[in-house]
Amino acid sequence: MQKKTINVGLLGFGTIGTGVVRLFQKNAELIAHRTGVNLQLARIADLDTTSDRGVTLPAGMLTNDADALLTDPEIDLVIELIGGYTPALQFILKAIAHGKHIVTANKALMAVHGQEIIAAASRAGVDVMFEAAVGGGIPVISAIKENLCANRFSTVLGILNGTCNFILTKMTDEKGDFAPVLAEAQSLGYAEADPTFDIEGVDTAHKIALLAAICFGTQIDFSQVYTEGITGITAVDIDFAARLGYKIKLLAIGKQRKDSVEVRVHPTMLPVDYQLAEVDGVFNAVRLSGDFLGPAMFYGRGAGMEATASAVVGDVMAIGRNIAVGAAGRTPIMGCWPQHIAQQPICPMSEIISRYYLRVTAVDQPGVLAKIATILGQYNISIQSMLQPECHAADSVPIVLMTHAAREADINQALLKIDALDIIAQPTCLIRVENDLD
Amino acid sequence: MQKKTINVGLLGFGTIGTGVVRLFQKNAELIAHRTGVNLQLARIADLDTTSDRGVTLPAGMLTNDADALLTDPEIDLVIELIGGYTPALQFILKAIAHGKHIVTANKALMAVHGQEIIAAASRAGVDVMFEAAVGGGIPVISAIKENLCANRFSTVLGILNGTCNFILTKMTDEKGDFAPVLAEAQSLGYAEADPTFDIEGVDTAHKIALLAAICFGTQIDFSQVYTEGITGITAVDIDFAARLGYKIKLLAIGKQRKDSVEVRVHPTMLPVDYQLAEVDGVFNAVRLSGDFLGPAMFYGRGAGMEATASAVVGDVMAIGRNIAVGAAGRTPIMGCWPQHIAQQPICPMSEIISRYYLRVTAVDQPGVLAKIATILGQYNISIQSMLQPECHAADSVPIVLMTHAAREADINQALLKIDALDIIAQPTCLIRVENDLD
Repeated sequence: MQKKTINVGLLGFGTIGTGVVRLFQKNAELIAHRTGVNLQLARIADLDTTSDRGVTLPAGMLTNDADALLTDPEIDLVIELIGGYTPALQFILKAIAHGKHIVTANKALMAVHGQEIIAAASRAGVDVMFEAAVGGGIPVISAIKENLCANRFSTVLGILNGTCNFILTKMTDEKGDFAPVLAEAQSLGYAEADPTFDIEGVDTAHKIALLAAICFGTQIDFSQVYTEGITGITAVDIDFAARLGYKIKLLAIGKQRKDSVEVRVHPTMLPVDYQLAEVDGVFNAVRLSGDFLGPAMFYGRGAGMEATASAVVGDVMAIGRNIAVGAAGRTPIMGCWPQHIAQQPICPMSEIISRYYLRVTAVDQPGVLAKIATILGQYNISIQSMLQPECHAADSVPIVLMTHAAREADINQALLKIDALDIIAQPTCLIRVENDLD
Repeated sequence: MQKKTINVGLLGFGTIGTGVVRLFQKNAELIAHRTGVNLQLARIADLDTTSDRGVTLPAGMLTNDADALLTDPEIDLVIELIGGYTPALQFILKAIAHGKHIVTANKALMAVHGQEIIAAASRAGVDVMFEAAVGGGIPVISAIKENLCANRFSTVLGILNGTCNFILTKMTDEKGDFAPVLAEAQSLGYAEADPTFDIEGVDTAHKIALLAAICFGTQIDFSQVYTEGITGITAVDIDFAARLGYKIKLLAIGKQRKDSVEVRVHPTMLPVDYQLAEVDGVFNAVRLSGDFLGPAMFYGRGAGMEATASAVVGDVMAIGRNIAVGAAGRTPIMGCWPQHIAQQPICPMSEIISRYYLRVTAVDQPGVLAKIATILGQYNISIQSMLQPECHAADSVPIVLMTHAAREADINQALLKIDALDIIAQPTCLIRVENDLD
């Protein structure tokens, strides 16, 4: 193996960028020994060229001129860590046009503009890798594309957002309500000042859109991914879940149906003894099922400077190995060669089959349960278990129902009728239940 | 990407070999779409050419002449699923000498004769992959070599033998003793007729030797791997472990020390709420810690026809991609280029530091505990907790001690003295405790 120098440019010198620089500096020898090539961090571009990030750079390495880096003929590979859509997309396309390979942690960009990036990369014959976009340090994208690629996957489930999982874990452990726990997460740095993308499930949706596309070999129209966050979760429902033997997680779900795929994100009750239910705090996990593999689970840090840097530099090393042996394009970017990628539709939510937790709030008078049960029966929804705790509130009682598997359209129709009854004091709370993992 | 046909030869048509054939037949189109090459199972060699394995082969594909397959110029890649040392080693070396890439599930061969195979492959410029050798369907070897390769690893821990884990899980759940549970495992097909390699820990030792070599970038002298199986585990100790909040697992341990590595296999107590303690039945799991990654865990089926076939064919597809773009040798076989592989010694067991569970069996008379505690104190072993249950046996009592971290040499010396006391009715039972996972 001939030693070859590969020059790496870094766009974005924030938290993750700093982690990448630290990793290159700390493990330089190890990186060389494992790749057999000389991977050099050659240039860094960021608008902020003065802040102290706690790392020492050679003079002249840091510039505020992204264009100079993107067009530098000495740069072989560009790491994009700016995030967001603009100017990240333009920068990546420009880098590709200049023949540079791409490593990015940008899940939003890949989920929404992935097709355009992949098409450009295919034309230019460069690699694009984005392991850090999903599950931080967990090498699940590479696992699906490389090691598990002999399998036809049936499901991919994930706990993919550390902020949401931290909040739900704390709400569960301390019986806290959403707003104060979110405030605490913000003060600890586990939630952004503007946490919308995390708590509304958008970040999780970006990630499951990518995982589903790779697992099922299909394009995913991100606008069709059902996305429901955790802002409506209350301490009351977490408590009822616990009494019934469940935990509430923000679960990302991908399932292969006959001629369509399910790709959805919503709060989900999982039996407490499921491995995924035991993934707490800021950790992430992905659970896959393949026709030969059976079930498998990957667990690790979902975010953070160091775990994400590990994934970014892992991708850089993979591309470095490709460059060294002239094997760019060895593995298709989405795990399947483009001409064979399908266009499977996303199954509408009305057609999914699930079990449901329903918390009905009714006035405390005789005959209430009969009326509710009658409507559920009319829509072929059968009740698996029920819980009506003694209640000391003045004039309404919670009735908790766990259904057997039912069609979401039927549930929605039934709830419209139930919530229109004059005995109903508040809109019914619905949480989907997942407990038939294959 | 140009379509190219790559011919695969299969040596060994037993259970796993049958799974590989089934996978090639069932997922042929998917394999082609994901690799971009035409991977053809061209020839199978097995001494038994007549048994019905439930799969239909083209006429002439199955032969009892391994040599014809090994020397066939049309064959690009040989899958070795014979197992054991002889003739598997000779066959692999012959295939390499004929320029064929190798995929094997043979942990014993790779752990003991890996150096010879790797040296031959390096000279011939062919790839050798062995994902199926460790953890069945769990893609941990590739993860370490490819995605996580930017990390300096500090520990790798595994539950790597499904037979042992099935037996220990059943002993725990049903309070059974070793011998009857082993017999049940044999009748269910979860243990071999001769289960020695499994229950004595040898199979697990082969696997951790490979994982440690890859994680720590060093040669591992397999003869120096401390290996203790589960035949000495009793229902009594499983019960005491549970009372103290622990489960007993056959744990494979690799740790990077300053100038040496720990590589050892023995029954180990893990706190019940650790993820590894929750890996039950025939499932396997590997837990890694890297300096940037932090902790990560991989979980899945440890063995079986289908999960192992998934790993074998995943390797075949990886090599197929390499061949397609002329990139054989893209990734070094053990994750690090040979000239940089270290020769770290394995730390002798006497030098390891661990916590210990000691079950002393003493005659029931005053002063017993004082004598034991005095000896432990003389060797700087401090007691973290103690349990002396009320005992209705005639003349001896169990005294269970959990120590703080101590040197194994000190523990051994102390136990020699303790067991020589005339108050001791039986040799003391020792089980190591792992509860400081980083």
